[in-house]
Amino acid sequence: MEKLIIEARVNEYAMRKRNPHVPWTSEEIAADAAAVREAGASILHFHARQDNGAPCHDEVRYAETVARVHEVCDLLIHPTLGANTLEASPEGRLAHVLEMAKDSRTRPDLAPMDMGSTNIDIYDPRQKKYLTTDQMYVNTTETLLYFAEAIRNAGLKPCAVAWNISYLRETLIFHEMGLLEEPLYLGLTLTEGPISAGHPASPAGLDAYLNLLPDDVPIEWTVYNYGGNLLNLAEKIISAGGHISVGLGDHAYQEVGTPTNAELIAMFVDVAKSVGRDVATPEETRKILGMN
Amino acid sequence: MEKLIIEARVNEYAMRKRNPHVPWTSEEIAADAAAVREAGASILHFHARQDNGAPCHDEVRYAETVARVHEVCDLLIHPTLGANTLEASPEGRLAHVLEMAKDSRTRPDLAPMDMGSTNIDIYDPRQKKYLTTDQMYVNTTETLLYFAEAIRNAGLKPCAVAWNISYLRETLIFHEMGLLEEPLYLGLTLTEGPISAGHPASPAGLDAYLNLLPDDVPIEWTVYNYGGNLLNLAEKIISAGGHISVGLGDHAYQEVGTPTNAELIAMFVDVAKSVGRDVATPEETRKILGMN
Repeated sequence: MEKLIIEARVNEYAMRKRNPHVPWTSEEIAADAAAVREAGASILHFHARQDNGAPCHDEVRYAETVARVHEVCDLLIHPTLGANTLEASPEGRLAHVLEMAKDSRTRPDLAPMDMGSTNIDIYDPRQKKYLTTDQMYVNTTETLLYFAEAIRNAGLKPCAVAWNISYLRETLIFHEMGLLEEPLYLGLTLTEGPISAGHPASPAGLDAYLNLLPDDVPIEWTVYNYGGNLLNLAEKIISAGGHISVGLGDHAYQEVGTPTNAELIAMFVDVAKSVGRDVATPEETRKILGMN
Repeated sequence: MEKLIIEARVNEYAMRKRNPHVPWTSEEIAADAAAVREAGASILHFHARQDNGAPCHDEVRYAETVARVHEVCDLLIHPTLGANTLEASPEGRLAHVLEMAKDSRTRPDLAPMDMGSTNIDIYDPRQKKYLTTDQMYVNTTETLLYFAEAIRNAGLKPCAVAWNISYLRETLIFHEMGLLEEPLYLGLTLTEGPISAGHPASPAGLDAYLNLLPDDVPIEWTVYNYGGNLLNLAEKIISAGGHISVGLGDHAYQEVGTPTNAELIAMFVDVAKSVGRDVATPEETRKILGMN
């Protein structure tokens, strides 16, 4: 079987209350990058953070972080567009990525495109109450058409992310329109905990995506579990030829010893070994995803 | 097996180019109502239309249509909130329904709640081009909380409609919060043709919903195919205990002889007979859905 791509989602906007190992600063992210590379990851997904952990939308901080990571390892880099910048224009949401792409010292390799829109409110099942009631994650078709063109023109590989089947169908339309190169790098979002916008993190929730992937489109798919433990599905995903996207940004993993990102990645490498699948290096990942 | 509920979706905003039998005026809708009742439908879903077929958001026209239908048959009535009134406030979108509910002469029985938000652009596969790029169908959680309370206070039965799994999960949260009475009347949206916002109208597209329905929540589920032929899935749906929502509003059905709504309903009744399932009367439907 093709080698396994492990993408390390090291921090998102996670704080340190549940797991103190979440990296925030450029230095911390670079140190974690080297460690997850050593453990078996080939792609780094990160969010720039202020020194106190607050979200950071500063282009300079993004560039500084990428430059530091490049200095310490050869991980492919997949920055976020920043969910907290949704009020910005499409151009504003992508600007830091395009700016970084101009300089080899700060150049990322991939960029995410969340292929649709959804309600994304926070629900507390203990109180049986929504803690927010007006949160939407909006990516209009017009925005996505701009992203597809700008990401391609910058020579980056888009990661097309689905939160549900509506997103998957929009992705397949973009492919039919010739806007996404083959193979597609497709992120399948499962969600647990306070966010219910993705599919449930169960075999049935995953299969609801997999059974609708077309046979005639080359697709490399990876799976997230935002808000929950992905280990429960790891063997299923890896055995089925999928890839893994995981990290402390998505879940604190207290139930398996509150690991560092590198320790967490090592657990997935162990699952891959147990089913006889090798792990891809960054260079091999580049080939699997058809990147230059 | 429990009896089959057939909901007739007689017109939506369909024009008459592909099928001349789409009812527009109050008189036409009432005549179709009597005919589909005779054929086996127990619920009528309709959109008020102007005499030339244009969308009509006039409360008086809605009320006049319901009154005429009540005069000619005992169908349960499920008006739309009107997709074209999305610019209106939540109160504005529901106002005609609440107004009609005050008078037994015009009183509807059900009201729809589309349980989430999605991009809903129109795509032309022949041109490989989006004909719209900024269309969204927005129902925020806040709006849905208002709908749930107002529809319950009016004594109507909500039909919770899912376009994808994100909507299904929001529906199940509303149930957990005690905002939706059991059994849920759950609409599962499949889409074909120019709209790709729902699940594909294939066995896998339907199963992607069915495999995620919880075992411990009483649910009566019905299936639409917006933009395509539902007959292809009728035996699967009816055999699995689901209900049918179909009509010329969703598809012209030229491939089966450009039928009237009543002729179309009769085709689904035939499928039910072939699998040994009886069709519910409006009174039986009321009991199945737990309505007063």
